[in-house]
Amino acid sequence: MSLTLDDIRAAAKRLDGVVHRTPVLRSRTLDRAVGAEVHIKAENLQRMGAFKFRGAYHAMCRLGPEQLARGIVTFSSGNHGQAVALAARELGTTAVVLMPADAPASKRAAVEGYGAEVIAFDRYTDDRDDLMTRLAAERGLTMIPPYEHWDVMAGQGTAALELIEDAGELDALLVPVGGGGLLAGSAVAAKGLLPGVRVIGVEPRAGNDTEQSLQAGRRVRVAVPRTIADGQAVATPGELTFSVNRRLTDEIALVDDDEIRDAMRFAFERLRIVIEPSGATVLAALLSGRVTLTGRAGVIISGGNIDVARFVSLF
Amino acid sequence: MSLTLDDIRAAAKRLDGVVHRTPVLRSRTLDRAVGAEVHIKAENLQRMGAFKFRGAYHAMCRLGPEQLARGIVTFSSGNHGQAVALAARELGTTAVVLMPADAPASKRAAVEGYGAEVIAFDRYTDDRDDLMTRLAAERGLTMIPPYEHWDVMAGQGTAALELIEDAGELDALLVPVGGGGLLAGSAVAAKGLLPGVRVIGVEPRAGNDTEQSLQAGRRVRVAVPRTIADGQAVATPGELTFSVNRRLTDEIALVDDDEIRDAMRFAFERLRIVIEPSGATVLAALLSGRVTLTGRAGVIISGGNIDVARFVSLF
Repeated sequence: MSLTLDDIRAAAKRLDGVVHRTPVLRSRTLDRAVGAEVHIKAENLQRMGAFKFRGAYHAMCRLGPEQLARGIVTFSSGNHGQAVALAARELGTTAVVLMPADAPASKRAAVEGYGAEVIAFDRYTDDRDDLMTRLAAERGLTMIPPYEHWDVMAGQGTAALELIEDAGELDALLVPVGGGGLLAGSAVAAKGLLPGVRVIGVEPRAGNDTEQSLQAGRRVRVAVPRTIADGQAVATPGELTFSVNRRLTDEIALVDDDEIRDAMRFAFERLRIVIEPSGATVLAALLSGRVTLTGRAGVIISGGNIDVARFVSLF
Repeated sequence: MSLTLDDIRAAAKRLDGVVHRTPVLRSRTLDRAVGAEVHIKAENLQRMGAFKFRGAYHAMCRLGPEQLARGIVTFSSGNHGQAVALAARELGTTAVVLMPADAPASKRAAVEGYGAEVIAFDRYTDDRDDLMTRLAAERGLTMIPPYEHWDVMAGQGTAALELIEDAGELDALLVPVGGGGLLAGSAVAAKGLLPGVRVIGVEPRAGNDTEQSLQAGRRVRVAVPRTIADGQAVATPGELTFSVNRRLTDEIALVDDDEIRDAMRFAFERLRIVIEPSGATVLAALLSGRVTLTGRAGVIISGGNIDVARFVSLF
């Protein structure tokens, strides 16, 4: 199994009319600050506020009716959980979402608001894969993990496909990296359409598991990172996602929490959009100068799910 | 003189490639909350963060070269000032902006950032028209007022024109009202394209000068309103704008500061966009139930210029 541009094109057809075709935003202020022409794929404006709806819905809509009817189980720090919960509601089934006990309250409330059951786990001690597998066996549920799934990755890749369709030729594409599903899907779409494009993954410095893994040539596990970028608090790349990303990722950029916060402020005040910390990493990489580029760049803003209370507490 | 759909179409041609064609956003969460299909024209994503750039640039690009070269003067609580400052820079001239001394710091900084000169006045005691007229005479400047100008109104109307082109048939259109320029331009565009559309202006309750004026059939002056909606702290409608709005506005809805704050929170958490208080009034009118509607509605989010510090202070 692998992932091809055709898989992503097929996913885009299945998602047509279900996901928002999110806008590609432009800002001359940003362009001047960065020294390049930046095209911003605003997946914070996606349904439920993140690209995750693409992959979750895509994987679930491909299940057989019996598998779907048995219900879904997943784990998620928040956005994938919301995505599965919303997709389950739309597809007429149920979902159980394993969430870290310290996930933002608004994300938990949103998952429950879409009608899913939430079970809390400890992000720093529990093994979420084990928990999910056990629950799936006990209750006969179908597992839709957040990134270790080809159909999930194909769905995520549709964001980059749309970006390139709308923005045209790009010299570079910056993508946030957590488990690596968005990066894998985006890299396949981007390299398929534009073989010369430079694909850059952006991680929080506190959790550079993908950078370390790419350097080592194998999946490295780090301590679960403590960062404001809760969507990227991942200790090791996925096996499937890494098999794609080691082939197609040109480089990894690292950003720290202060740079993420500055990028969130820039997005708020100059782009007038709300970006959660993980989504701001790609802007942080550009604004901090950690990535320098010229020409035409695309960035994927992964999500915007942050409640006012948490936003206020960060500033 | 008056304002016609053709004037707005001509303005749209002149602004093509200069202003952003801002996206029309959709939210099923909002639709469910409101009970109608809401099409959101996101002028907070316009250049310099508000629809005002449309009118200012349009009026200024129609000046003769000598008039333009002498420089521009205007008054503004913020967004029109930024718009004139940016347009002046783009058109290669200079601008002086009279701003209330209590205008948000970020708006003053932005005007100065675009290279304009700022002169402060007291919003509650000074007559800004007098100040502007005097300054224009003293320095030989060309006045581009924020709404009492047909070319300004024509430029503002292009937002509604784009909204209807993109969203199609609408049963109602909600527009924030300050001096009335956006409402006038929008009403002409909307009624010209969709004769049956219901045009609703939305004002802060503390400053319902347009509502009172429409009821009285003449321009009524109220005490300068104290509201968080600083962009609508206007004491009386414009003469030209009122001549249009009394003819084409079907009703006025009033919202209070708490409703505006709730709408800003909804926009932040559920739409993931930043809206300044004045821009949030149209959402506030819908979410508070002060305006009830069915079918397809358009709303114009006028702007998103609020700095993080002020936003934090509101929550």
